[in-house]
Amino acid sequence: MMWDRLWLNVNLATMEPGGVAYGAIEDGAIAALDGRIAWVGPRAALPAPPARLADAVVDCAGGWLTPGLVDCHTHLVFAGHRARDFEMRLNGARREDILAAGGGIPYTVRATRAASEESLFAAALKRLDVLRAQGVTTIEIKSGYGLDRETELRQLRVARALGQARPVRVTPTYLGAHGVSPEYKGRAAEYVEFMIREMLPLVVREKLADAVDAGLERIVYSPELIEKLFQAARAHGLPVKAHTDQYSDAGGGGIVGRNRGLSADHLEYTSDASIAAMAAGGTVATLLPGATFTLRETRMPPVQKFRDAGVPMALATNCNPGSSPTTSILMMLNMGCTMFALTPEEALAGVTREGARAVGLANEIGTLSVGKAADFALWEIDVPAELSYWIGWNPLKAVVVAGKPVPLPGA
Amino acid sequence: MMWDRLWLNVNLATMEPGGVAYGAIEDGAIAALDGRIAWVGPRAALPAPPARLADAVVDCAGGWLTPGLVDCHTHLVFAGHRARDFEMRLNGARREDILAAGGGIPYTVRATRAASEESLFAAALKRLDVLRAQGVTTIEIKSGYGLDRETELRQLRVARALGQARPVRVTPTYLGAHGVSPEYKGRAAEYVEFMIREMLPLVVREKLADAVDAGLERIVYSPELIEKLFQAARAHGLPVKAHTDQYSDAGGGGIVGRNRGLSADHLEYTSDASIAAMAAGGTVATLLPGATFTLRETRMPPVQKFRDAGVPMALATNCNPGSSPTTSILMMLNMGCTMFALTPEEALAGVTREGARAVGLANEIGTLSVGKAADFALWEIDVPAELSYWIGWNPLKAVVVAGKPVPLPGA
Repeated sequence: MMWDRLWLNVNLATMEPGGVAYGAIEDGAIAALDGRIAWVGPRAALPAPPARLADAVVDCAGGWLTPGLVDCHTHLVFAGHRARDFEMRLNGARREDILAAGGGIPYTVRATRAASEESLFAAALKRLDVLRAQGVTTIEIKSGYGLDRETELRQLRVARALGQARPVRVTPTYLGAHGVSPEYKGRAAEYVEFMIREMLPLVVREKLADAVDAGLERIVYSPELIEKLFQAARAHGLPVKAHTDQYSDAGGGGIVGRNRGLSADHLEYTSDASIAAMAAGGTVATLLPGATFTLRETRMPPVQKFRDAGVPMALATNCNPGSSPTTSILMMLNMGCTMFALTPEEALAGVTREGARAVGLANEIGTLSVGKAADFALWEIDVPAELSYWIGWNPLKAVVVAGKPVPLPGA
Repeated sequence: MMWDRLWLNVNLATMEPGGVAYGAIEDGAIAALDGRIAWVGPRAALPAPPARLADAVVDCAGGWLTPGLVDCHTHLVFAGHRARDFEMRLNGARREDILAAGGGIPYTVRATRAASEESLFAAALKRLDVLRAQGVTTIEIKSGYGLDRETELRQLRVARALGQARPVRVTPTYLGAHGVSPEYKGRAAEYVEFMIREMLPLVVREKLADAVDAGLERIVYSPELIEKLFQAARAHGLPVKAHTDQYSDAGGGGIVGRNRGLSADHLEYTSDASIAAMAAGGTVATLLPGATFTLRETRMPPVQKFRDAGVPMALATNCNPGSSPTTSILMMLNMGCTMFALTPEEALAGVTREGARAVGLANEIGTLSVGKAADFALWEIDVPAELSYWIGWNPLKAVVVAGKPVPLPGA
């Protein structure tokens, strides 16, 4: 039996489906070899005395070990913030007033275009470290605040660089179709043409993205244009996903499902037909309670229908300066339960097993299973539900990425 | 000009009312002497060259300084947690099921009664440090999970001890009337008699509380009983407050107002007559969005009516294991704005100036004013609204209590 490291005196929320809640193994043991999980099971069933590994046996003090958390939907790389918009709105300003005052998404696009790669990196790194301090070991990061050639590439390069600077897995997503570029105002079809002709080949050649995302709402793009973009992406070997059905049913869940997309995200208004298409396509429903909360949306995503149809549900921060200015994945667990009535087990699955599926890494991370990457988070809690129950309480004690303990930011 | 210490390169949110928003002084200066604010104003108006204080001049790097935050309503001292209840509820259990399974408030009462003073102190200290790490320098802490003689006294002693163990002002509140003690089931009048005859004299003699609180909802106590308790408290020189009008209009705001109480708390259903009585009595409306959120309450407190009547509004965590399991005062600012439509300025006033009023310390803390205690929080933000805007982002850089920098917990 060859292992690099062994964790003992620990309860495991393996998140393996189909068995006990949380795939839990109380008083378990888990071992890693070459960055991967080599053994996992009850302590009593350990095949060899751990004394052989004395210098690499970790005593977890009776805490709970979960898979490292996955934040599968973020816009982490942006310049500035929109606290002024937030304040104007609460003082009675309308959306038009805020735009007229230089705010809204156009502000973030201008600020991000104007920002250097260094300053974008520095701002995003701070946010990344706050997420890492809550157990995040894998994060998806989208472009989409440039809507032009250079800024979109800059955002994606920053995303890749973040994954070099820190022990965290980053999956960058090209979101040129976040909205229509201001230079193409009223010419959405031409902008899509530009993305297909110029951007996708570049992004693929420089290996800057692992997926392609699009804003699929009625007011922005016709389904035909997004379908065209998706087919081009898939022809390049890039899986697709969409922000969709957030404000009304745009049929977006169905389009993503029929393209066997990784995930359809938001989905407050998605239809039964879309849910069926998602189930058939193996598409994850990524729920984003931070936006539902911040926008005071009263319509909740159809959680029970996703359950009934067997559509897996992921949860994510949607970290962005407008509709979800959050860097707390744990607060999303709480909101997912309190607002969407997810069970704490579903919420934790949403940021582990199903989050992994939503970034296309279901075989690599997301459960404590032999052969997967040894990415863990250790929590000082009595029961896994505590991760969803508390508001603003962070019980993280340690993080392991690829079998190695990593220092906690700010600790 | 004699000062112990001077802060420069700083913007001040003095929170002095009546002038510019936040009582802001951009590029200001503030000086302390013997733990109190000795000078505050624009940098340009500083009466003496700061060079004389070179060894005690603090460069704030252009951040914002606010009064130290006040959390004016907490149940910080309790044993255990109720994550299991939370999970049961989300798996479909009813309130009765949870009680039958040994959960609910009775669980917390049993656990708190069974806990030693040391273990209660240790658990509360961790929560206190998380709040301090968000700029809290004053905290109210209630008893109310004993409902008997010994446990209530133990909770209050722990509250006092927390204020000795850390550089933080603690105001303990006797909340024997949180509910009716199980030993007095069906005999609320006798329990009130016990509190008046035995508990209040003890609490006063041992200086264990600065105020008396009561649960004033229709289902618990008649208004007459609470009136009697309040009058006894006031005869001892203790100001009163109440948890009230949360589930229906119990006339509680009015009872507190007529007793010139410090605050009436929750208030979702309070009446116009109660609001008028609160205005007349100088009573603060303490808003507790953590509970509104956690309980999925759809009725919001009548914020506009409080504004119109000139009733000051405080905001607090209501940290407790059942309806508001939170240790984040910043999340309450965000929820106060997003859910209750407070402006960011009102939210910040709610945890500074009005929070101070709600704990009876309006003359001592809560604004950056000459003569008040030099309790500050320094934030790395561009505009004060950022304190309300972010979810799960903590921009605290430094804390000063009584003129002295104090180490940040976990930093």
